[in-house]
Amino acid sequence: MLFEKNDRILFIGDSIGDYDRWRPKGESADGWGTSYVADVAQMLQSTYPEYRLRIMNVCTSGDQTRDLLARWDEDVMKNQPDWVCMMIGINDVWRIYDCPDRPEMGVGIEEYEKNLEKMIADTLPHVKGMVLMTPYFMELNKEDSMRKTMDLYGAVVKKLGEKHGILTIDTQKMWDDFFIKGDLHPHAVCWDMIHPNTVGRKVLMRTFLKAVGYEW
Amino acid sequence: MLFEKNDRILFIGDSIGDYDRWRPKGESADGWGTSYVADVAQMLQSTYPEYRLRIMNVCTSGDQTRDLLARWDEDVMKNQPDWVCMMIGINDVWRIYDCPDRPEMGVGIEEYEKNLEKMIADTLPHVKGMVLMTPYFMELNKEDSMRKTMDLYGAVVKKLGEKHGILTIDTQKMWDDFFIKGDLHPHAVCWDMIHPNTVGRKVLMRTFLKAVGYEW
Amino acid sequence: MLFEKNDRILFIGDSIGDYDRWRPKGESADGWGTSYVADVAQMLQSTYPEYRLRIMNVCTSGDQTRDLLARWDEDVMKNQPDWVCMMIGINDVWRIYDCPDRPEMGVGIEEYEKNLEKMIADTLPHVKGMVLMTPYFMELNKEDSMRKTMDLYGAVVKKLGEKHGILTIDTQKMWDDFFIKGDLHPHAVCWDMIHPNTVGRKVLMRTFLKAVGYEW
Amino acid sequence: MLFEKNDRILFIGDSIGDYDRWRPKGESADGWGTSYVADVAQMLQSTYPEYRLRIMNVCTSGDQTRDLLARWDEDVMKNQPDWVCMMIGINDVWRIYDCPDRPEMGVGIEEYEKNLEKMIADTLPHVKGMVLMTPYFMELNKEDSMRKTMDLYGAVVKKLGEKHGILTIDTQKMWDDFFIKGDLHPHAVCWDMIHPNTVGRKVLMRTFLKAVGYEW
Amino acid sequence: MLFEKNDRILFIGDSIGDYDRWRPKGESADGWGTSYVADVAQMLQSTYPEYRLRIMNVCTSGDQTRDLLARWDEDVMKNQPDWVCMMIGINDVWRIYDCPDRPEMGVGIEEYEKNLEKMIADTLPHVKGMVLMTPYFMELNKEDSMRKTMDLYGAVVKKLGEKHGILTIDTQKMWDDFFIKGDLHPHAVCWDMIHPNTVGRKVLMRTFLKAVGYEW
Amino acid sequence: MLFEKNDRILFIGDSIGDYDRWRPKGESADGWGTSYVADVAQMLQSTYPEYRLRIMNVCTSGDQTRDLLARWDEDVMKNQPDWVCMMIGINDVWRIYDCPDRPEMGVGIEEYEKNLEKMIADTLPHVKGMVLMTPYFMELNKEDSMRKTMDLYGAVVKKLGEKHGILTIDTQKMWDDFFIKGDLHPHAVCWDMIHPNTVGRKVLMRTFLKAVGYEW
Amino acid sequence: MLFEKNDRILFIGDSIGDYDRWRPKGESADGWGTSYVADVAQMLQSTYPEYRLRIMNVCTSGDQTRDLLARWDEDVMKNQPDWVCMMIGINDVWRIYDCPDRPEMGVGIEEYEKNLEKMIADTLPHVKGMVLMTPYFMELNKEDSMRKTMDLYGAVVKKLGEKHGILTIDTQKMWDDFFIKGDLHPHAVCWDMIHPNTVGRKVLMRTFLKAVGYEW
Amino acid sequence: MLFEKNDRILFIGDSIGDYDRWRPKGESADGWGTSYVADVAQMLQSTYPEYRLRIMNVCTSGDQTRDLLARWDEDVMKNQPDWVCMMIGINDVWRIYDCPDRPEMGVGIEEYEKNLEKMIADTLPHVKGMVLMTPYFMELNKEDSMRKTMDLYGAVVKKLGEKHGILTIDTQKMWDDFFIKGDLHPHAVCWDMIHPNTVGRKVLMRTFLKAVGYEW
Repeated sequence: MLFEKNDRILFIGDSIGDYDRWRPKGESADGWGTSYVADVAQMLQSTYPEYRLRIMNVCTSGDQTRDLLARWDEDVMKNQPDWVCMMIGINDVWRIYDCPDRPEMGVGIEEYEKNLEKMIADTLPHVKGMVLMTPYFMELNKEDSMRKTMDLYGAVVKKLGEKHGILTIDTQKMWDDFFIKGDLHPHAVCWDMIHPNTVGRKVLMRTFLKAVGYEW
Repeated sequence: MLFEKNDRILFIGDSIGDYDRWRPKGESADGWGTSYVADVAQMLQSTYPEYRLRIMNVCTSGDQTRDLLARWDEDVMKNQPDWVCMMIGINDVWRIYDCPDRPEMGVGIEEYEKNLEKMIADTLPHVKGMVLMTPYFMELNKEDSMRKTMDLYGAVVKKLGEKHGILTIDTQKMWDDFFIKGDLHPHAVCWDMIHPNTVGRKVLMRTFLKAVGYEW
Repeated sequence: MLFEKNDRILFIGDSIGDYDRWRPKGESADGWGTSYVADVAQMLQSTYPEYRLRIMNVCTSGDQTRDLLARWDEDVMKNQPDWVCMMIGINDVWRIYDCPDRPEMGVGIEEYEKNLEKMIADTLPHVKGMVLMTPYFMELNKEDSMRKTMDLYGAVVKKLGEKHGILTIDTQKMWDDFFIKGDLHPHAVCWDMIHPNTVGRKVLMRTFLKAVGYEW
Repeated sequence: MLFEKNDRILFIGDSIGDYDRWRPKGESADGWGTSYVADVAQMLQSTYPEYRLRIMNVCTSGDQTRDLLARWDEDVMKNQPDWVCMMIGINDVWRIYDCPDRPEMGVGIEEYEKNLEKMIADTLPHVKGMVLMTPYFMELNKEDSMRKTMDLYGAVVKKLGEKHGILTIDTQKMWDDFFIKGDLHPHAVCWDMIHPNTVGRKVLMRTFLKAVGYEW
Repeated sequence: MLFEKNDRILFIGDSIGDYDRWRPKGESADGWGTSYVADVAQMLQSTYPEYRLRIMNVCTSGDQTRDLLARWDEDVMKNQPDWVCMMIGINDVWRIYDCPDRPEMGVGIEEYEKNLEKMIADTLPHVKGMVLMTPYFMELNKEDSMRKTMDLYGAVVKKLGEKHGILTIDTQKMWDDFFIKGDLHPHAVCWDMIHPNTVGRKVLMRTFLKAVGYEW
Repeated sequence: MLFEKNDRILFIGDSIGDYDRWRPKGESADGWGTSYVADVAQMLQSTYPEYRLRIMNVCTSGDQTRDLLARWDEDVMKNQPDWVCMMIGINDVWRIYDCPDRPEMGVGIEEYEKNLEKMIADTLPHVKGMVLMTPYFMELNKEDSMRKTMDLYGAVVKKLGEKHGILTIDTQKMWDDFFIKGDLHPHAVCWDMIHPNTVGRKVLMRTFLKAVGYEW
Repeated sequence: MLFEKNDRILFIGDSIGDYDRWRPKGESADGWGTSYVADVAQMLQSTYPEYRLRIMNVCTSGDQTRDLLARWDEDVMKNQPDWVCMMIGINDVWRIYDCPDRPEMGVGIEEYEKNLEKMIADTLPHVKGMVLMTPYFMELNKEDSMRKTMDLYGAVVKKLGEKHGILTIDTQKMWDDFFIKGDLHPHAVCWDMIHPNTVGRKVLMRTFLKAVGYEW
Repeated sequence: MLFEKNDRILFIGDSIGDYDRWRPKGESADGWGTSYVADVAQMLQSTYPEYRLRIMNVCTSGDQTRDLLARWDEDVMKNQPDWVCMMIGINDVWRIYDCPDRPEMGVGIEEYEKNLEKMIADTLPHVKGMVLMTPYFMELNKEDSMRKTMDLYGAVVKKLGEKHGILTIDTQKMWDDFFIKGDLHPHAVCWDMIHPNTVGRKVLMRTFLKAVGYEW
């Protein structure tokens, strides 16, 4: 597995990882909240109790890359993680489509890439490694305007992951595959096509754990 | 306009018309709730104050045609309406897609038609008229499985409307047109593609009012 | 219609426009509150979705011209509106009559005019235009002391509107006409003759929209 | 004074006498609520402590003569009062004017008189006496439609009081006189012209006490 | 009556005058709270509406003379009263008896007199007059230790009242007389022998009003 | 000590033993509430853990002998106690003095004795024994009207205790002694002279435990 | 894996499976609560979405075998499960040790076995199979009195499982192994040694899933 | 007894002494909270009312020696106690065992001793004396890892107590003895083996009182 004894693992992102995690930092069995991050943390600690893995959750609902950038020092660097796991971008795109009357709410793709690049470049020298996850939108129609945009932002994540040699998880593909395998409509997992219910969070959890070499 | 002085107008349906209407019957400026039904009622009473129109809202969140049938006597006939306005079917379809592990939750299309037919036949002899509205799903991709099914249920409504000579409003077409006109993604109106925000409710209101000959 | 594509429209005033609008600024489908301002905003966005009109509500319950003056820079100018729509004065007059033991609570007519004049003069050079609405009191008896005073304050609004060439709406006349047309007592719309119920708010909404050239 | 040692005095009516009185019967220093009835009870017990007057408050918000009739046995006769003090009728009239779309909500003047007559006739043989109070509307313009109607209902009370030789208090005149004496607008006492604030309740209290011969 | 047109009358003291009065200053029909001060204010405004009396309540639960002294400038002088009505001392004495393990909680009689003297001397030159009320304890046994002490503090008030020619009300005597007249145990008015119920508050109100020459 | 291994001990009475005990029966460390009964139960179980004493609390705030009689079968006999400990009578007397306008609220001394006699006679044949406690009023002046009456009711308890050979505790004497020993005013223990604070409850606890032969 | 397409799987037991599951039956992503049962259900549905497994949770906090027996028909048989998974017995033992003064609260080992036997015998003919789990106590000292008793009850479960050929999971052994593997004190998983935190629940989940042949 | 007339006795420690004591300082019958400290205070004041003992509770849930050190000046020295009673250390040890992934949470034994030593040395010159209590863990198995550690910390307390000639209470031995005497499992007193229920708190109270020479 990617993680080693006594490693400090930090998750940062938006509401997908938040789900009532504690402030200022989500730690411990109760503090991680109820997101896939909590599921991942519980699986790691219960399967590898002897590793004493330290898992910290600083995901915040509604955040965009702009917000992460603003709190990166305080929430990431000061916590001295060995690993930084990040899924960000859903709100960068979503605000473009759900607030059409307020154009300053969204984050354009150039700024998105620049923000990501800066966070990665600032962090890599100080950590053992990072794990990147693409943003997603559970719309199956790839011609849908918001899905199309989300795919472009996901491509940015994959491009930067490749450039920096970072393990990158394609969560959009994960959902596409899951709905096909189960012959399910996205509404079976959530009504807003963004926030997975408890079943959907296990899909994310398992995908993450497989990617980092967790052994069942 | 369709409605005449002292007419009693009753709205029945699901959450689209509920939005916290009062129980057992939503009447008066506060009692109609905050749905498009409330908007319609307020427009009718404020534009035609001299008509003394009586507007009653008995829409209930989550209801399917099965539920309406069960409470038709109590909630419709006993209120002696001159007009019955009905939008029902969203939940008949939705439950098929969001509860795939509990097949008894949805309502099949044959039962749906039978339920509608019975309600219409039982009612028409006792009222001045009815207004039917199709169910809808704000997914723009007509190949989406749930959208496709919803369109079939909508077709049933239109078929019965024609058969019985009832004024029928195609709300699915209304949304399709609205998103095209505004170059909007459905998430601009709601995240779950079902429950319109306050702007979306005004779209429904205006469509209804135009259909019944309201004069601005 | 008065408003053009991408226009920024700001409403300022007292409780008549507040009704739980969000702080510090009421924006978006939920943020406008439930006043006539919200109704107007929803109508504009649902009828002209392609205009991308930006509507901001900074009305505050209880405010008098004194209060508006004090927050004009922060709440109006900093928001860079293209249009400023203002109804103010009810509380300037009301406090004179409901707090007879505390004379400092009301605002005299000279101060009222001076305050209005300053707000208009400061604003006009920076906007496409303003819309003024007179204050009102839903007492039908024009000899009633408070009604008589309110009419004087309304006359000030109309005078200043004319002087500056601003579109001005006579809301007092609107109520007088509405009650006559519907043969209604003011208590049919509200018990305190100030705060309209949901039906009354639609009267205000329609009057405003007609004045600005909205097309149904 | 009208009342004698150990007398049982019962007040019945609508919200004017309710103001959070206890259920099923408002008794004792806390139980009377905060209406003029409570003020009267407190004055009687504090000025004549040796009388051991028993004061019972069964006024209920929203009640009309219809409601009183329905609960007369339970709430009046079973409590075996020596004196019954009644102010009723405001809601009989008010509903006619604030619910124009629901005509069954108001009580017509014939039914009003019939209801009053029955309550008086059923009660007089079993009590030492009754005290009647007219309903009122704090509109000063006697040509106002609702005020005009209220005056007619008040005339019925006075007629029946005279017919049965019952002490009758003209509360409408009381308000008219009070506003003139103080040069006050009705809004100084309440915004809805029905429910007096704490100052207005003292006006009612003093008028009642003077009528029954209370000595300061 | 003592008070004249447009007079500003301020009440200061402890919980006996507080009973949920508004902060920072209790004004208006709702703001006076529910103490005897509120009853007095309501009686003055309802009986002499043309006087436009301004009544301010700054009594605070738990206060002793020490507390009043500390806030005298802010709460009394800045409000520019014409009349200052003060009842203080109950808590100065009470804390001696209910907190025997914390001797610093009570206020000794020398300090009590000094505090009173200072407040009076500082105030008299700036007002039309003051009204003093003695503290009280509703224990009928004059040999009770706390009653005995309270009587000594009451004597201080009377002494200072006489010295400065201030109208002084003996509230202890008032309670003694009231219980005798009504053949009542103090528990009929309150369980703690300090905080009168609504009936008891009317006793205080009437005593105050009679002392200041109010005419019924 | 009076109690033996596995004994079932039941306490019945009024608010003095209630203090939020659980319903329908107060058992276990949390269920006894916070009265002296709870203190006694905790002392017995912590000092004699090997006795497995079963302690049940069915005291109810506000109860008089009338109320106990009505629920004696359900609350006492059905619980099959070995010992019944009872303190009742405070409310029988108190209501006479705090509700002078409602004479049916108190319980006269003849009825009091009759009620007690019946409860004792019905119970003694079925239990190992009873413990009686007199009611009390923490007024030190024996000439106070309510204290005088309370002493008469206490004398009834002592008479019946003697008659039936029941262990009887004079709680009134206990308070008198306590206040003298500590040179304390009753307000040091409670403001209403009935409900002891946590210190006062320990006085009751120790008195009870000493009477039943508890060894520290 | 043990479970097949469209299987109905029911979990019954005590608080270990409850954790706020919905009433009357815990179904769907939100309805299962937050126990290991919920984790198991989410894993099954997310890994085998095409199986359409129906998972029902009827575990109830505090239940003993007595309680399960009483509701077996209603909660188990009427739900027509294909599989019944049961962990029960913790409260049968726990009450013996935490309520030493109330011996009727615990369930003796003979009754425990009889209850289990009856539930199994009644159920097996109607289902595809059962899964049994032993009760546990996270005390590592096997000489601890409650641990010793719990082991005896666990032995009963294993004996019956063998007798009826039912898949049986030894959860006590699972905890023992887990604490050794991780060199952890039981307080790392919970303070009461009964209710696992979110990490501990994943231990239970994984143990269950491995036993039923789930493939990661 | 150890304590003398007018002595000021301060208790400091963790949750065992907190149980909702008031902030910033727990004083008076209500302010001490519901811990054994409250029981002790109530016993002292009720048995020795003439001593006027001043008892102050500054115990805070969750505190370790580190926290006490940080607030020693503010919470101990500024209150000028004659006696300081301290039980601290449970959380120093507990965090080591319940937060294995966060090693900075516990307090090592060297730091523990250093912290204690400093508090004692700083305090002794200013007080009549101190009372020390060892920390405890209600696990009966002395080989349990956390119990073993707690015993080591307890030994430190006893060592320092002896070194400085301070009265020291071995609370661990107290629990061991209590469970043996009563043949009880620790779960009879609390589920987490740390926080005693109301019965267990009386065990602590009695042990403390016996140690300080309290006479029943």
